[in-house]
Amino acid sequence: MEAGAAGDCRPAKPGPCVSGAALEACAEPGRRMPTVAAVLPAGGCGERMGVRTPKQFCPILERPLISYTLQALERARWVKDIVVVVTAENRGAMESIIRKYQHARVSLAEAGVTRHRSIFNGLKALAGDKPGCELPKPEVVIIHDAVRPFMDEDVLLQVVLAAKEHGAAGAMRPLVSTIIRASADGCLDHSLERAAHRASEMPQAFLFDVIYKAYQQCSEYDLDFGTECLQLALKYCDTKAKLVEGSPDLWKVTYRRDLSAAESIIKERISQEICLVMETNEEKAHAGHVLEEVLKKELSNVKIMSGAMSHGNQDIQQFIFAQCYNYVCLNGRSADFHETQQLLKMLQDSNLSILYPVVVVLVYFLDCQAVPLSQKMESLMWIRELAKEVKNGNILLSCLLICYPQDEQKLQENLKQAAVIIAALIKDRNPGLVGQLLVA
Amino acid sequence: MEAGAAGDCRPAKPGPCVSGAALEACAEPGRRMPTVAAVLPAGGCGERMGVRTPKQFCPILERPLISYTLQALERARWVKDIVVVVTAENRGAMESIIRKYQHARVSLAEAGVTRHRSIFNGLKALAGDKPGCELPKPEVVIIHDAVRPFMDEDVLLQVVLAAKEHGAAGAMRPLVSTIIRASADGCLDHSLERAAHRASEMPQAFLFDVIYKAYQQCSEYDLDFGTECLQLALKYCDTKAKLVEGSPDLWKVTYRRDLSAAESIIKERISQEICLVMETNEEKAHAGHVLEEVLKKELSNVKIMSGAMSHGNQDIQQFIFAQCYNYVCLNGRSADFHETQQLLKMLQDSNLSILYPVVVVLVYFLDCQAVPLSQKMESLMWIRELAKEVKNGNILLSCLLICYPQDEQKLQENLKQAAVIIAALIKDRNPGLVGQLLVA
Repeated sequence: MEAGAAGDCRPAKPGPCVSGAALEACAEPGRRMPTVAAVLPAGGCGERMGVRTPKQFCPILERPLISYTLQALERARWVKDIVVVVTAENRGAMESIIRKYQHARVSLAEAGVTRHRSIFNGLKALAGDKPGCELPKPEVVIIHDAVRPFMDEDVLLQVVLAAKEHGAAGAMRPLVSTIIRASADGCLDHSLERAAHRASEMPQAFLFDVIYKAYQQCSEYDLDFGTECLQLALKYCDTKAKLVEGSPDLWKVTYRRDLSAAESIIKERISQEICLVMETNEEKAHAGHVLEEVLKKELSNVKIMSGAMSHGNQDIQQFIFAQCYNYVCLNGRSADFHETQQLLKMLQDSNLSILYPVVVVLVYFLDCQAVPLSQKMESLMWIRELAKEVKNGNILLSCLLICYPQDEQKLQENLKQAAVIIAALIKDRNPGLVGQLLVA
Repeated sequence: MEAGAAGDCRPAKPGPCVSGAALEACAEPGRRMPTVAAVLPAGGCGERMGVRTPKQFCPILERPLISYTLQALERARWVKDIVVVVTAENRGAMESIIRKYQHARVSLAEAGVTRHRSIFNGLKALAGDKPGCELPKPEVVIIHDAVRPFMDEDVLLQVVLAAKEHGAAGAMRPLVSTIIRASADGCLDHSLERAAHRASEMPQAFLFDVIYKAYQQCSEYDLDFGTECLQLALKYCDTKAKLVEGSPDLWKVTYRRDLSAAESIIKERISQEICLVMETNEEKAHAGHVLEEVLKKELSNVKIMSGAMSHGNQDIQQFIFAQCYNYVCLNGRSADFHETQQLLKMLQDSNLSILYPVVVVLVYFLDCQAVPLSQKMESLMWIRELAKEVKNGNILLSCLLICYPQDEQKLQENLKQAAVIIAALIKDRNPGLVGQLLVA
């Protein structure tokens, strides 16, 4: 056992967050919130994925999947300890994930050869009955999957409260396919009534004493071939689990396509908000407001917010604090190197990009008739080097030149194209395109 | 009933294709291939998707999902007729999909209020016992889902041959989650042994007379609440379906995340090959070969092929014929507008881009010390207009300038960056970035 890196200096969002007040509202009056810990088995080899890396360590936007799952658990501040169960082989990798992404409240335990044996090892680390075991025994223990990163705090809380009341509880989902039983000759024996059955998902939660006793008493066969913790609680402790309806997001990253799906969901979540960093200079600000209008119209499902680089940068600090991962900086008709550097420094100091790549698009308006495009481009070549530099800090910097003609219709066309390019940079978040000068 | 647009002038790949010879090898000697038709129910409203458009009509790379599924069925040339069952409301949309993507052998039937009623309507269109029904009755009928676009011909053939022998057959997959039965109070009643159960997937196939009889005899309750065709064959015709192990690709696009997963799979499939269009001019060709080497090293999982724009363009025609969707044209140190136009014309004439967007990257090498980057960029501005024009034909054109310094190490760095940019353009296939001049 070893305590993970503590510290709470990097943001844990995006994702719904149940505050202390909401927590009290959820729990009925008189019901005290139990002490809670979690066990996260991560010893699997991911053979269904068809890739070498165990799926919990596969990168999504360059960060391992398990880090997203830890982040989801950490959002619930009332989960006091998280025991991640990994193989001896992956212990080092897991320790560096904990350090790099600043996960707190995480301890490690060693995986067994099956999932049930791994979970049992995780529970032992919380049992408080071993010498050298430093974690306190919780009243309720959550068991989750390292490869289900999208659990929200609400379902976690429901499962925990149901476990406190019933002894055991688990999330379930309606079936997508009909389930059939095959006969010995590989033919259909019968199909199950779809409406009466459910898929058992994670998270699950248990009174610690119930599930620990179940694991202590269960057979070697159960430990080797069982797949369902709820079944152990039923069989060995006569505890009937309460089933809680989960959201589709609880799904388990199983196949390679699931990694793509997870990446899309994550990209979408961090692309919901764009912060427009405006010029305070009035003449320049006009172009910015025009672009703002077009962005709001063209990217109608994205929240466009604006703030100025002034007043001690309070506006921008606020967006950073609110975990906005997309910044479009309007630099009027001149290239203001200083302000750009100031914004980049604020982003770097904030640690915002530890968890997700932050997109920064520097926008320059250009009177194409007065200044040739190529001359403008030449004057912006410094962006290429700067982009390389900040990419090391997970900031994806690129530049967009918008031709700003007198003709109103042509202008609207250019602004629409600018919106499309900004959307492409934010949606794809492709690090291969940093430092480019794009033109609308 | 109405016959869909015929014609076979657009490519049906990519995807494995079982040739006539392979077909004979699959079927044992003496076993004749039955006549085969398919019913594709597409009347659902996709309520689980959380979007308004029924999921079978949701676009992937701007083409509706159902078109990909039709393409998968069409690849099996031995499937003589495909009956798509749609609501009256979506009939017009379906007809224009058939026209636009040149689907052949497709007829339409009208959906019922449930899946089973829709399938029954599709079967009626093939029964040959109705006046005005022009389709011949097949020996074997395939029933597939409009939202399972990744079925390969091999599993289809297996299911059809098993149906011919056993009367009914269906693809199945191992379970991902444990299945549980809930008691009336919302608690766990018991969990099912995972190893003994399977998820029933599509495609399924039946002797036509078996499944048609089953539908004719089955109860209103079955038609309204049933979910499993194999069960009907068992219940009403005492026909035990043979279960065929399917690949993970058979999965059903159910949730929004599945659309993202499908898009990723499709993008990956069409990004497996890059055609390098080389200069024949020897001096210029050198730079091309250097880039070819770097691309092969950096994009190690992509097949890099090269050909020249000469010899009556035979090389390039061959790649187009082999359905390569990615072209990187090396234009040496000069901008050869003529050759570019020639390639674009060949692509347009080929209809290659009817099914998938084709990426074309024009590469120019540049001696940055001799010619300023901005001057070069200026001279390539025509690409912006040309890109807009060919985008209408689903060709995504952009331009990449590679600085070609004397310093060997610097050159290698630039070439590596070029490979990264090319990979980004091909992988993301984002139409928002067409017409851009990128720099490595």
